[in-house]
Amino acid sequence: MPQSFHHIGLFIRKDDPILENAVVKVSQFLSSHATSVVINEPLPFLPELAVLSVSDFPQQCDLTIAIGGDGTILSASRALAGTDLPLVGINVGRLGFLADVTLDELEQQLDQILTGHYREDSRYLMQATINGSSDPIGCAMNDVVIHASQSLHMVEFETSINGRFLNSQRADGVLVATPTGSTAYAMSAGGPILDIDLDALVLASVCPHTLSNRPLVIAADSVVDITLSDNNIANCLVTCDGRPGHLLQPGDTVRIERYPKTITLLHLESHDHYSILRAKLEWGRKLT
Amino acid sequence: MPQSFHHIGLFIRKDDPILENAVVKVSQFLSSHATSVVINEPLPFLPELAVLSVSDFPQQCDLTIAIGGDGTILSASRALAGTDLPLVGINVGRLGFLADVTLDELEQQLDQILTGHYREDSRYLMQATINGSSDPIGCAMNDVVIHASQSLHMVEFETSINGRFLNSQRADGVLVATPTGSTAYAMSAGGPILDIDLDALVLASVCPHTLSNRPLVIAADSVVDITLSDNNIANCLVTCDGRPGHLLQPGDTVRIERYPKTITLLHLESHDHYSILRAKLEWGRKLT
Amino acid sequence: MPQSFHHIGLFIRKDDPILENAVVKVSQFLSSHATSVVINEPLPFLPELAVLSVSDFPQQCDLTIAIGGDGTILSASRALAGTDLPLVGINVGRLGFLADVTLDELEQQLDQILTGHYREDSRYLMQATINGSSDPIGCAMNDVVIHASQSLHMVEFETSINGRFLNSQRADGVLVATPTGSTAYAMSAGGPILDIDLDALVLASVCPHTLSNRPLVIAADSVVDITLSDNNIANCLVTCDGRPGHLLQPGDTVRIERYPKTITLLHLESHDHYSILRAKLEWGRKLT
Amino acid sequence: MPQSFHHIGLFIRKDDPILENAVVKVSQFLSSHATSVVINEPLPFLPELAVLSVSDFPQQCDLTIAIGGDGTILSASRALAGTDLPLVGINVGRLGFLADVTLDELEQQLDQILTGHYREDSRYLMQATINGSSDPIGCAMNDVVIHASQSLHMVEFETSINGRFLNSQRADGVLVATPTGSTAYAMSAGGPILDIDLDALVLASVCPHTLSNRPLVIAADSVVDITLSDNNIANCLVTCDGRPGHLLQPGDTVRIERYPKTITLLHLESHDHYSILRAKLEWGRKLT
Repeated sequence: MPQSFHHIGLFIRKDDPILENAVVKVSQFLSSHATSVVINEPLPFLPELAVLSVSDFPQQCDLTIAIGGDGTILSASRALAGTDLPLVGINVGRLGFLADVTLDELEQQLDQILTGHYREDSRYLMQATINGSSDPIGCAMNDVVIHASQSLHMVEFETSINGRFLNSQRADGVLVATPTGSTAYAMSAGGPILDIDLDALVLASVCPHTLSNRPLVIAADSVVDITLSDNNIANCLVTCDGRPGHLLQPGDTVRIERYPKTITLLHLESHDHYSILRAKLEWGRKLT
Repeated sequence: MPQSFHHIGLFIRKDDPILENAVVKVSQFLSSHATSVVINEPLPFLPELAVLSVSDFPQQCDLTIAIGGDGTILSASRALAGTDLPLVGINVGRLGFLADVTLDELEQQLDQILTGHYREDSRYLMQATINGSSDPIGCAMNDVVIHASQSLHMVEFETSINGRFLNSQRADGVLVATPTGSTAYAMSAGGPILDIDLDALVLASVCPHTLSNRPLVIAADSVVDITLSDNNIANCLVTCDGRPGHLLQPGDTVRIERYPKTITLLHLESHDHYSILRAKLEWGRKLT
Repeated sequence: MPQSFHHIGLFIRKDDPILENAVVKVSQFLSSHATSVVINEPLPFLPELAVLSVSDFPQQCDLTIAIGGDGTILSASRALAGTDLPLVGINVGRLGFLADVTLDELEQQLDQILTGHYREDSRYLMQATINGSSDPIGCAMNDVVIHASQSLHMVEFETSINGRFLNSQRADGVLVATPTGSTAYAMSAGGPILDIDLDALVLASVCPHTLSNRPLVIAADSVVDITLSDNNIANCLVTCDGRPGHLLQPGDTVRIERYPKTITLLHLESHDHYSILRAKLEWGRKLT
Repeated sequence: MPQSFHHIGLFIRKDDPILENAVVKVSQFLSSHATSVVINEPLPFLPELAVLSVSDFPQQCDLTIAIGGDGTILSASRALAGTDLPLVGINVGRLGFLADVTLDELEQQLDQILTGHYREDSRYLMQATINGSSDPIGCAMNDVVIHASQSLHMVEFETSINGRFLNSQRADGVLVATPTGSTAYAMSAGGPILDIDLDALVLASVCPHTLSNRPLVIAADSVVDITLSDNNIANCLVTCDGRPGHLLQPGDTVRIERYPKTITLLHLESHDHYSILRAKLEWGRKLT
């Protein structure tokens, strides 16, 4: 059931291009519409904002507002995964898949969200673990990619799904993507679009050597094991959502599986994912 | 729980290339391993076999054995959809995705199935209806394709999923395929492989005019509406599993959705779908 | 060396959507800028225009002006192939690859062309012949396609290039396209773009069954022989530039080769094919 | 006109997996069929063979025999480019595109070559230069690739062909490949096959962000300029035939163009490139 929100955590990435204007605008709006506001990074131009680590947001906030675009939403989602704190995104750049509140209509749109007029959108994340460790090396909302640390080096690997051998391959890399990630790197690698609420993952190879290789769509609760061949001479990495990767050794097995908890994004009631797809993929235009 | 089978219905397609040898071999085996045997088509070389319409199989049989390959299994599945009668396939040609009992090991393999040593594989079908009719024009285990009746004519259409507008397009055709069909025509059209037990459908265009068009994977319980533009000058057809199509008029809407009941295929306990994928798609080989 | 033009043949397709406004505008301009004007079809609203069959244009005209878009230019090019008469296109609809004079700037742009300020663009066509006949069944500026007469029927065929066996295949169809045609149907079928002045053809299959099939780019003077298998049960057609096809029999061989003469298109001096590619293929936009 | 050969230079790569057996076999054959034999690397097990730098081969040899597979032929071709010395390859591993003499039929096949029964196959190479330098950084027989030095980092760049702007893009990388290279990395990146004697290059992006990006085939004498955007934060490399790359700075322009001289490969008279394509790409097999 929709709720209203009073205790707001602002989430930004400090290495973002200038978003001063956006943060000030959001902060001003919240000063009269929220009971408390904290932010995850100190900002010299907003010294009055209390700073709080995002890991402490769940204790003091009932809503996180991420300012900055899809990459910022991905960061916030990974940071908040495992908590029940919902998340809404303010889009400060071009049209995004995840953040649909715009600066132009900020007051009206944020007011709708804060007063309980929103749609919930539950997204799942993946986690990657190495060689049976109980400690994941990271989690990903878009994709986990395994690849040579230097580009143009081939990776040789075997894939199993739920313990059953699928195939062995040589490729520039291999990725597992969520529906959220299916319109990101996976799409450049030739993967299909997964409907945003589909309970599935896509497994795709990047520049595969085998010409009959095709992307494979599997159930979201599948356990994917990628085992590097002992023949790999190049260093390999596993990378979650494009962040700096984790080094792998020949023979290592990376297990990719659903993260136990979801993250809840809030959208405007008018939000329509297909409309965003049409706009971002320019489906409105035709060749001839 | 696995059961054993005693009352067998044999299913063949009478327009199949010569399968006399296979039917005789199966029939001889069953003469000493089954209580009753019927067949859906009279065969001059097996006059002693009782003939029974496949629609009456459920009253007299506890197992259908389809002899002839994947196309025959598709026919039998459509005919038996909506009943509880399980189905096993005897493969008389090259390796198939659906029929895994082989003539070479017929006695041993059929004995396993009849005595309850099998794996169940539940597959769903789709149905297509026109303009809100309550009477489907047909059902499909592989795919429903909408296309111009003459090839090289473009189709212009709009697609909605669960009542939400997805896009409008011009293409040679558009298809919705099940996981079973994802390795058939949908794959030639550039679609991904859907894991065989994934609860999903793939929606793909054939030779789309929009270059940013990509296959879309949707939940299996989605309702897909394809509405032909009034601008279409060519006659259009909707075709289920490649059988002769049903003529459409400009402005018609074809609804494609899951058929209410599944069909149960029986496989040998050693059956491994990934192994068949590797063999059929030749994943074992590499370019260089 | 650029020349100026005084005797104009107007070329239209009478089944075109209303282009009355465009023809009147062109005709008015020419009444004071040309010595003589003829048209290939009588128009009730322009009774004063002399009508002349396009096949007689070369005797009376030094320039053909085609009004109507890329399809009209293709028609005019096929009609004029084998003559030395140059051709310029007036684009009455959306941006075209072939016709770059626009109605908005008609006077200024046509004046440039007529006074010798243009760029020549020599395009070649292909011809198709059946079973060694000396009489081509047609010529094509975009593509020759071989396909089943009914859609969704597979074609089985063998391909040879310059008498050397390339492969045998099963597919929905097979096409050979010129650089001009490489951005038309061939592109929907997955073919590459051929640079517009490249001396090459692309051979591509439509929905091939063999997953490792790839488009093949061959020299423009190659002789391509497509032989239909005797196994084809569906009727097959060979189609030039999408016009009504020519019926084929099982076992027939279609020879596709360069037409002996080229056609000369005239463009504005500012014409830039890459700029049209960027606009038509929307390369200006990016996914994220 | 075919000639016979008497002065042989053997070319090996010393980091090749064990090819002792092959070199001994070739050496034994030549001891009675050639006037003089040299090798580019000292081999402990063949101390009697005179060692000569490959750059001196043209002074003393009339034929180079490369032992080791396609990669070895690529190395030898780059080393000999610019000389008139022809090259034949002994294939010691699996079927190659370039080396067609096999160990099994070594004596008979080499004898044919040495006595003038061969087919000449002239291949061109490309060279890459940076920022207008007169000194190429390297030459390539397969492909020149520009990419981030670390994988998964995007490159932003502009492309011009013969000084005309084509487009700006973001991608994992961009490549230019010869017909020889069109079946190597370019094919994994989605490029078409260029007929082996076609006078053309293919320009293709690796994992492009723009969904309407397509490979472009251009004339072999085209000059391709790739200019890195000043926005690139990752280090970029230009790589010829997959060897260690040359570091680029933001704003750098890489010019890729045909190398002035060709290399002549010798093949058996029975050599058929299409037959190799069919075998390597497994065109003989079909999906269903």
